[in-house]
Amino acid sequence: MSTVSGGVAASREVLVLLRPSGVAGLVPELADPSAPHLTVKDQGVSRGDGLFETALAVPGDHGALTVRKLGAHLGRLGGSAEILDLPVPSPAQWRQAIDMGLAEFARSCPGTAATVKLTVTRGPETAAGLAPQPTAWVLLTATALPDPSVRPAGLRVLLLNRGLDSRVADKAPWLLAGAKTLSYAVNMAALRHAKANGADDVLFVSSDGQLLEGPTSTALLVRRNAEGRRELVTPLRQQGILAGTSQAVVFAAAEREGWPLGYGPLTPADLEGIEGLWLASSVRGVAPVLSVDGEPLPVDDELTDRLNAWLREDRDPGAHAVTVD
Amino acid sequence: MSTVSGGVAASREVLVLLRPSGVAGLVPELADPSAPHLTVKDQGVSRGDGLFETALAVPGDHGALTVRKLGAHLGRLGGSAEILDLPVPSPAQWRQAIDMGLAEFARSCPGTAATVKLTVTRGPETAAGLAPQPTAWVLLTATALPDPSVRPAGLRVLLLNRGLDSRVADKAPWLLAGAKTLSYAVNMAALRHAKANGADDVLFVSSDGQLLEGPTSTALLVRRNAEGRRELVTPLRQQGILAGTSQAVVFAAAEREGWPLGYGPLTPADLEGIEGLWLASSVRGVAPVLSVDGEPLPVDDELTDRLNAWLREDRDPGAHAVTVD
Repeated sequence: MSTVSGGVAASREVLVLLRPSGVAGLVPELADPSAPHLTVKDQGVSRGDGLFETALAVPGDHGALTVRKLGAHLGRLGGSAEILDLPVPSPAQWRQAIDMGLAEFARSCPGTAATVKLTVTRGPETAAGLAPQPTAWVLLTATALPDPSVRPAGLRVLLLNRGLDSRVADKAPWLLAGAKTLSYAVNMAALRHAKANGADDVLFVSSDGQLLEGPTSTALLVRRNAEGRRELVTPLRQQGILAGTSQAVVFAAAEREGWPLGYGPLTPADLEGIEGLWLASSVRGVAPVLSVDGEPLPVDDELTDRLNAWLREDRDPGAHAVTVD
Repeated sequence: MSTVSGGVAASREVLVLLRPSGVAGLVPELADPSAPHLTVKDQGVSRGDGLFETALAVPGDHGALTVRKLGAHLGRLGGSAEILDLPVPSPAQWRQAIDMGLAEFARSCPGTAATVKLTVTRGPETAAGLAPQPTAWVLLTATALPDPSVRPAGLRVLLLNRGLDSRVADKAPWLLAGAKTLSYAVNMAALRHAKANGADDVLFVSSDGQLLEGPTSTALLVRRNAEGRRELVTPLRQQGILAGTSQAVVFAAAEREGWPLGYGPLTPADLEGIEGLWLASSVRGVAPVLSVDGEPLPVDDELTDRLNAWLREDRDPGAHAVTVD
């Protein structure tokens, strides 16, 4: 494990492998995060065939780490596994591995926050007829916990065509829309394209003009509704969007405080006249969008603070999370 | 290496890693294919961010193996690398690693054909500002060389929507259409969908109704042209289709024999009245399609034999290969 073999840099990471065991199913085991653990025949790498989730663990009063909205992450992973027809560890097996990783991380990096990345692949290629044996692990990496008094940096965003029609998810399940798979090359290429063009992030648009999501985030906007009240809106989930765990927590908190909520549909024209647009993700938090395709948007610091406070509260997302274990 | 550490099963594979070396750039090195060589932080697995090519090596008269259409594979890999903005080994570095693998494979599995899979990933995640160090390897796996007297098995094929518009490749380069990336989860899901529905393979159709390609193959069809002559046709490359190396070799051979050739556009309606449809790939060869969506197609054994003979001849694909090193 990293604290034994590694130096200062290595000890900022903790890796837990979920090892298959004939008797006990899957047994969590600490391992060196810098050592190789995957063969070149693992279908995670040979075919991008697997799933992941990235959560945030924050240190609490007694030094123990708590993973924010873990139920929503595990629930979404279960939903993705169904879409991908992939056997994955049970929520209890994940929790056992995560707990081992959190304890080790709290010991080696006391008082530090961590990203908690769960990954499961279809495992090494097997001969025809043999069942695949998935490969699964939890990687914890030290991260700077966003200081509540410092707002996430504002983002210049480009609208990029995601290529797919917004109605395709239901009609063509093999396109895996809505599953958080390891096949993220397009998401990474979109981010590189944005950065090469002077922007920081991307908001994908469907081929029929619907606002979708960021490559690693969910879009939220605030606008006035017909009664002149502020409402919090996110794009329609039926459009093959990944169900945002941060969006679910923020929506649940807003609902408790009496905010009207909306689930799209949204098009770029709906950005006209809004009070703010944000990209929400587990690690970065709720970051305000400064401009879209170079057109400035209003930025409301008080709203940014409120959305991030709701995310930090980490209360039950209830019905706003698509699947909960 | 496998011949030292492995048993009979392991010795059917040979792995060559391209190890970075300060002095020599990349140095090929034999390694155990069953041992782990990748960390969980390799972006090949964490993001499906990388490229691959699968070629076929066949034993010749003196026991040495020759990789079929290697120039076309290396050329296509170079083209994919440009689309993905990925630093990859040079053709000379690949050839050095492949030669090492072929020599070892010929020694351990004399007289046996092999699939030769080249893979390069963006390497382990690095801190911001540090250049990625790609991970690259060549994996050779024993395969049954198709007996020229036995035709490839016929395929029942489903037409499945690929989701993307056929004109999207040029307009949206971040969608990586035409690059052979490791993000193959959708291709694998499409094949699972076909098999779950009683079929063997898939022919993707664009959202605007154009015939595209298979998840791991290129479509070829034979029909009569306006003058009543047989012509060989493949879908338009501009539709974001992977440039088929087998298709290129077959087209070049057909051209030398005076066949009229066509590059689409093709729609499902164009399957009406054809003399045959095939899916071409490097390892399986040119396999006849028995039916599309349950509708039987004519199967012409003589044409199947001729197309496979052209592929086996492995002559220079010339201008039919998109990029050649």
